[in-house]
Amino acid sequence: MKIAIAQLNPIIGDLNGNAKQILVAAREAEKQDVRLLLTPELSICGYPPRDLLLDPSFVSQMGVILQQLAEELPSQMAVLVGCVQPNERSLAVGGKPLYNSSALLQHGKIQQIFHKRLLPTYDVFDEYRYFEPGLAANSLVLEAVGSRESGVGSREEATVTHHAPLKIGVTICEDLWNDEEFWGKRSYAINPIDDLIQQGVDLVVNLSASPYSANKQQVREAMLQHGSMRHQIPVLYTNQVGANDDLIFDGCSVGFNRAGEMVCRARAFETDLLIVEYDEQARDLQPSKIAPMPANEDEEIWQALVLGVRDYTRKCGFSKVVLGLSGGIDSSLVAAIATAALGKENVLGVLMPSPYSSEHSVQDALELGKNLGILTQTIPIGELMQGYDKTLEPLFAGTPFGIAEENIQSRIRGNLLMAVANKFGYLLLSTGNKSEMAVGYCTLYGDMNGGLAAIADVPKTRVYSICRWLNERGEERRRDSGFSESGAILATSHQPLATPDSRLPIVPENVINKPPSAELKPGQLDQDSLPDYDILDDILQKLIQEHQSAAQIVAAGHDATVVDRVVQLVVKAEFKRRQAPPGLKITDRAFGTGWRMPIANKWVSNSTIPSSEVVSQASLSPSLPPR
Amino acid sequence: MKIAIAQLNPIIGDLNGNAKQILVAAREAEKQDVRLLLTPELSICGYPPRDLLLDPSFVSQMGVILQQLAEELPSQMAVLVGCVQPNERSLAVGGKPLYNSSALLQHGKIQQIFHKRLLPTYDVFDEYRYFEPGLAANSLVLEAVGSRESGVGSREEATVTHHAPLKIGVTICEDLWNDEEFWGKRSYAINPIDDLIQQGVDLVVNLSASPYSANKQQVREAMLQHGSMRHQIPVLYTNQVGANDDLIFDGCSVGFNRAGEMVCRARAFETDLLIVEYDEQARDLQPSKIAPMPANEDEEIWQALVLGVRDYTRKCGFSKVVLGLSGGIDSSLVAAIATAALGKENVLGVLMPSPYSSEHSVQDALELGKNLGILTQTIPIGELMQGYDKTLEPLFAGTPFGIAEENIQSRIRGNLLMAVANKFGYLLLSTGNKSEMAVGYCTLYGDMNGGLAAIADVPKTRVYSICRWLNERGEERRRDSGFSESGAILATSHQPLATPDSRLPIVPENVINKPPSAELKPGQLDQDSLPDYDILDDILQKLIQEHQSAAQIVAAGHDATVVDRVVQLVVKAEFKRRQAPPGLKITDRAFGTGWRMPIANKWVSNSTIPSSEVVSQASLSPSLPPR
Repeated sequence: MKIAIAQLNPIIGDLNGNAKQILVAAREAEKQDVRLLLTPELSICGYPPRDLLLDPSFVSQMGVILQQLAEELPSQMAVLVGCVQPNERSLAVGGKPLYNSSALLQHGKIQQIFHKRLLPTYDVFDEYRYFEPGLAANSLVLEAVGSRESGVGSREEATVTHHAPLKIGVTICEDLWNDEEFWGKRSYAINPIDDLIQQGVDLVVNLSASPYSANKQQVREAMLQHGSMRHQIPVLYTNQVGANDDLIFDGCSVGFNRAGEMVCRARAFETDLLIVEYDEQARDLQPSKIAPMPANEDEEIWQALVLGVRDYTRKCGFSKVVLGLSGGIDSSLVAAIATAALGKENVLGVLMPSPYSSEHSVQDALELGKNLGILTQTIPIGELMQGYDKTLEPLFAGTPFGIAEENIQSRIRGNLLMAVANKFGYLLLSTGNKSEMAVGYCTLYGDMNGGLAAIADVPKTRVYSICRWLNERGEERRRDSGFSESGAILATSHQPLATPDSRLPIVPENVINKPPSAELKPGQLDQDSLPDYDILDDILQKLIQEHQSAAQIVAAGHDATVVDRVVQLVVKAEFKRRQAPPGLKITDRAFGTGWRMPIANKWVSNSTIPSSEVVSQASLSPSLPPR
Repeated sequence: MKIAIAQLNPIIGDLNGNAKQILVAAREAEKQDVRLLLTPELSICGYPPRDLLLDPSFVSQMGVILQQLAEELPSQMAVLVGCVQPNERSLAVGGKPLYNSSALLQHGKIQQIFHKRLLPTYDVFDEYRYFEPGLAANSLVLEAVGSRESGVGSREEATVTHHAPLKIGVTICEDLWNDEEFWGKRSYAINPIDDLIQQGVDLVVNLSASPYSANKQQVREAMLQHGSMRHQIPVLYTNQVGANDDLIFDGCSVGFNRAGEMVCRARAFETDLLIVEYDEQARDLQPSKIAPMPANEDEEIWQALVLGVRDYTRKCGFSKVVLGLSGGIDSSLVAAIATAALGKENVLGVLMPSPYSSEHSVQDALELGKNLGILTQTIPIGELMQGYDKTLEPLFAGTPFGIAEENIQSRIRGNLLMAVANKFGYLLLSTGNKSEMAVGYCTLYGDMNGGLAAIADVPKTRVYSICRWLNERGEERRRDSGFSESGAILATSHQPLATPDSRLPIVPENVINKPPSAELKPGQLDQDSLPDYDILDDILQKLIQEHQSAAQIVAAGHDATVVDRVVQLVVKAEFKRRQAPPGLKITDRAFGTGWRMPIANKWVSNSTIPSSEVVSQASLSPSLPPR
């Protein structure tokens, strides 16, 4: 019996468009005799719909579209479609008004509804804000191949068959993320897979919308493998692909047989239709196509960012982007990402040299633009700087050059870039990295300007590493991912990764080798104000991702003065981050929708406050594995 | 027996400072023979601490400070202090790692811990992100007056008394917000007060941090009155006061006797120490001081905004603010608020006229400045506009004047204001109102610039109404709120509301009477681009606060074309709001931490999509009453 995973790229709120994607996938699957089609969590509205769920007309229209879809789908095929469902009991007995559900559509109707039981409410997830947890574990039954086709639950016409019906346990995303053997702890009181096993299911399917972070697929696969081995049950995991706002979904839908062997995997960062055979005699999944993963972490993050930039641009209705090119490594990387995402003809780089800009900065930026084949424009800002000096003279006379003047330059550039964006309908990409965003080494309303912060979650040391990888790819061009036979029909929103046009290196060697500088005053270097980036990034990793205290970071070998200063800078920069554009999330903990810090706040962890024994560290580290 | 409510204004994360506030209140209460002191929810860390709760060193340090406080407090007094507590069982059985708790401190020790049972997770509240709900209803017991003082739970020394011990049920904020009789529906499956009544408590205390919105105190009082009458039990509600980031806490702590009569109320928008007598013979609260409420909604919102501006400024470490004065009504109101909040000597108004500015704009702004007694500076921007024109000429030649050029002007002003703020260490206040923020009639990185958006949740029609009220106050100066005897000791962070210095009207009549204009091109009026503000605000009220669909708004009598256009504008402006500064929340639904909309989104409710019957509107309207 053939089962297919439709690894779809929905647009949030585009109910008609998303339904059409499901329909196209189902028609293609029908040609290949697929009996059951799996789609991601909330596939009909896209994940996460966030506060659209508070709009009753959105929810009711979703019901209308779901009904229409049921009527249009191939009648014989069973299709699981992610949707929300009202909680009819909430007014009477309490509880949230909606469920996060999956509907089984077949024979023109909604046959069965499954509710998500474990609701992630941490990091970027707010599910308890909207949803009531489902109470029951549920399964669906498919008659075996060779039996006369029968409706789910209506077996009066079923004929005798050699095989027992296939009983499939349906789980939604987080439902599979509570294996205390795997995680070493429980996150929720119940474990839905235990209930399904007790019901005697033959197969567990999981419908997910699991956002990307670096190396997460390895964790997912280890966890799914553990589950399939522990319970001796085949597992099929379906993920969303595509990006919206700060979240990137990497796809990589995957299946494991009852021995814990991987039997299939869909492509990373692309739509796919993955078909796998369930052998009714062996009661197990058969080996099928396994798509390769990116070769290393740099390539993986690169692909994630390319998808993130492409989808944000496209889904917000833009086709072209503009960005400032300083000749530095951050804007060089963002330009390369944008070129790969949108094509060189859709990227405009703007150089805005000031009297403090070095000669090599302009050369490096122009060389990068040439390597990428993108259009560049040069707009010197010296006269505007003088204009501000003159305009502010009555107030500023007699004060020394300082941060205010540095920021004016950055904001002149921000104004010019927005003027270009507004005039020509471009999306402005901002180019700040995570290390800068962490310590506030950036100008609000200046270089922070943009509709999307492409590398805001990429630490500076990783920016270097990706640029080196980009250059080292040599003349190897990224394989033209094209379309597989089954993937092609899903590809309305797909566009192969463009390859930068130039000979290598793409990023001029000088950009990589020169010391980083904001060039906002003569001779300025980042390291005049900040620790070396390898030290800074290690402190930030411990502080932000590992939730370590200043005392712990010092105990790990860092200088106490440096640590205390970095911690203070991070706290003080909160007001800037609050006003930052969405930044593509590639780590476990990004400064985005999952980072909710007060601004008016006097808590600063410093190295003189010992980490008390009052509270166990382990019990407080982020309560759940990032999904 | 005397019970006191310490209506405190904590600073988020300032564990030592907040503990000191509690200590000062307790020492004052001790002088007045108070037996039990109530403090607000999470009084030791301030509410809401948000993701500081994910920092283990923050939680452990809170435990240390709580212990120290227990040792320093007057030994005989029982004090309820809001704090978080680890959930020791979470690793083994699942669940969140913390509780939102209140600790009973007495005799130098933590005597008892109470956990919050109902965890708001809607609007601005994210409590399920951090906390596990408490399972049990709990009460504390105080020996009656006349009995020998005994430790809670240690009665070996208690002497005979004429009165039974007082059994007090402890609830935390939301715990009291689930009365299905009052709300007409249940929000949670359990109702903690029912459990306490069954335990036979004599009094229910509620420790809250309930953010302000207009008219909310009336709802709170009606609900508390309903509860006290329904269960024939006296109720004491303790609220936090003060503001942080987007949230304003209005105080207004209040008590009701078992007949549902109000017996005491603390001041609105100020710290207070409210003492009330519990009559052990009558088993009821005795009448005490009832502070007046603001006379009308305009005054109430005004006071809220004054507190919001004062506290954000102070708690972020600023003493002075700067803002742009356009001669329009929005900046006039913000200047008046800032003057009342911080004193005229701490407010700088900057006029930045362009060639498109009308003569009266400059005059109006100067007159306003004079009325308020604040310093003003005038910085014309004409030359800078020419500078940008010249600089962009190579790219923009031949294109018509449009939005890009309008935005340049606004961004020049934004840059100048930030330069002044950076140079002199001022906080920049932005002046946009809610109507503008809703439809995007504002410039990102221009007039949206600022650390705090003082009136971002105030609809334009309400801006007019508050300004008219401000002028109509006549020569009546706001009463010098001073300090009551009991309040004075809490007043380290308190500063009486300053009264604008000028003769009336404060806001020049011309500012109120002229048609609103952004003055970014010759002859421009807001109403060239937008519907009349009374129409716009009514549509926005229905759309945003009442969750109505476009079809419903049209059915209520609005023009379909106008409604559809407004809805589209609201959706399209999401990218601007995402980058806005925190805006002081004064309505049930503000564009702040409680507004979580996707940007890359294709859902637009429009009047041709009927509101289907599939989902009951009632069941989906915001699931819970705003707390």
